[in-house]
Amino acid sequence: MMGGDYAPLEAVKGIQLYNAQKDKDTHLVLVGDQELILKHLNEQGLDPASFTIVHASQVIDMHEHPTKALKEKQNSSIAIGFHLLASGKIDAFISAGNTGAMMVGALFSVKAIEGVQRPTIGAYLPRENGKLGWLLDVGINSDCKPENLLQFGILGSLFVQHVWNVEKPRVALLNIGEEEGKGNILTQAAYPLLKASEEINFIGNLEGRDIFVDKADVIVCEGFTGNVILKLSESIYDITVRRNIKDEYFDKFHFEQYGGVPVLGVNKPVIIGHGISFGPAFMNMIVMAEKMIATDLLGKIKESFGAKAVQTPE
Amino acid sequence: MMGGDYAPLEAVKGIQLYNAQKDKDTHLVLVGDQELILKHLNEQGLDPASFTIVHASQVIDMHEHPTKALKEKQNSSIAIGFHLLASGKIDAFISAGNTGAMMVGALFSVKAIEGVQRPTIGAYLPRENGKLGWLLDVGINSDCKPENLLQFGILGSLFVQHVWNVEKPRVALLNIGEEEGKGNILTQAAYPLLKASEEINFIGNLEGRDIFVDKADVIVCEGFTGNVILKLSESIYDITVRRNIKDEYFDKFHFEQYGGVPVLGVNKPVIIGHGISFGPAFMNMIVMAEKMIATDLLGKIKESFGAKAVQTPE
Repeated sequence: MMGGDYAPLEAVKGIQLYNAQKDKDTHLVLVGDQELILKHLNEQGLDPASFTIVHASQVIDMHEHPTKALKEKQNSSIAIGFHLLASGKIDAFISAGNTGAMMVGALFSVKAIEGVQRPTIGAYLPRENGKLGWLLDVGINSDCKPENLLQFGILGSLFVQHVWNVEKPRVALLNIGEEEGKGNILTQAAYPLLKASEEINFIGNLEGRDIFVDKADVIVCEGFTGNVILKLSESIYDITVRRNIKDEYFDKFHFEQYGGVPVLGVNKPVIIGHGISFGPAFMNMIVMAEKMIATDLLGKIKESFGAKAVQTPE
Repeated sequence: MMGGDYAPLEAVKGIQLYNAQKDKDTHLVLVGDQELILKHLNEQGLDPASFTIVHASQVIDMHEHPTKALKEKQNSSIAIGFHLLASGKIDAFISAGNTGAMMVGALFSVKAIEGVQRPTIGAYLPRENGKLGWLLDVGINSDCKPENLLQFGILGSLFVQHVWNVEKPRVALLNIGEEEGKGNILTQAAYPLLKASEEINFIGNLEGRDIFVDKADVIVCEGFTGNVILKLSESIYDITVRRNIKDEYFDKFHFEQYGGVPVLGVNKPVIIGHGISFGPAFMNMIVMAEKMIATDLLGKIKESFGAKAVQTPE
């Protein structure tokens, strides 16, 4: 409840939206400053009795060093959230708080699924036809091996298939040429791995010009290029706002509207929201967590990586 | 004259524009199919006697393999152009033809300046205030060492200083975090080199969101990310066209309007145009070549890299 620039008000508004719009069968556990949470719940006309409130006496600020803060602030809402998640007291953990601390918590408290070398986060790719694509990695893994890109492809594909209901998601490799053999050392080596994988529907290379075109459902790249693309795209939205361009499509470059992004490849559902998250984003994150649980996405991922380990022992 | 989708007509139109607008003290040598060139010069009302026409009986197509084509088609306009340039019969070579063949010709016929490890090409970065930035490398060097990024910074800085008349160009490193120490292995290692260099005015890291903001005159990155950025940016322009968005700023994302880009780091001025180049682009390329010669850009580059070699023997 304490994450994001407008905490906890916008988180409470998100809960309100969730309650109003859904057949809500999810019990929400609200972690944060109890007094503040109660105040906001009451102000927004929500009954505190319908939630479990877990008090957290500390908050990790947006600019604190993730590892240090998480270690030192054991009573922070993020630390407590991960404790609840790791111990099975909650089924998913959502926060718009310090992204680094959320990542560190996901990696060190919830931990990577066996067989997943590098958990990853992705970014939404809006397309003109209203569909969405998924780009990963966008910044946790700035130096990658070819196998990492393959795993991003598998993780992204399973996410898009189960959470977005896309049949046989098209997986592409971001590259600087269309033909096999093009690219830098990394993409040249990753291409045959992606091509040979039976876990994904690999459609080949895509270039920078194809990122916002509906050619692939999942595009994989290392986190350096992915992060540059994400931030560049956000800046395109900012430019349209500054220039007073009203366009339905470019409005979709306003990424925080989508909600958060899951940390794919860790053992439990962890969803990280944008620092500037408003009510609808919080609602979307709750819905995404529900979907991840309802479709047993993590079971599917574990199955895929477990099966793969059996196929290729040593 | 044979390069680009609309050759030689648009090249001839470019010459016409150049003749009309400038105190023309440049003698143009036109390389290509003589009959075709004469036909178009006459049709556009240009006097063939005011040019030197060098006949080339072959053309390298846009999709031919660069090295192979250049080797096998010794009578192609590109091969002849580089021969004229290398032998000192022309002072600059401009073409909107096969980009790969132009690169191969620049690297193997004109060759890298001593001390330059990797010649590079850049891309225009339009800014909302009307200024331009320069991003490099954008695709020749898809795997780089830290020293390459430093050299791109020096080459870009000299280009922007002399050809665009920018005093003390601000040079930034494209990265995925603002603070020193952030980034992937490459950018972490490149940062201290850029910081320590006395050849450039290094202002630190910039992120994806800063690329189209007037924070730096020169932004350096390896060619993989640079190429993705360039093509993504071109696609943003295409989207604005498809969506009928008329905006003065986004119109500047139509990169072929600028003309071509110089191959920086080779011994003579070589300018490569976009395959879809129209008259104004050809005119701009002639003007850029003039400016590179008039400011002795290549002398300045040689001086800089020569001086550096003396400073750090071995």
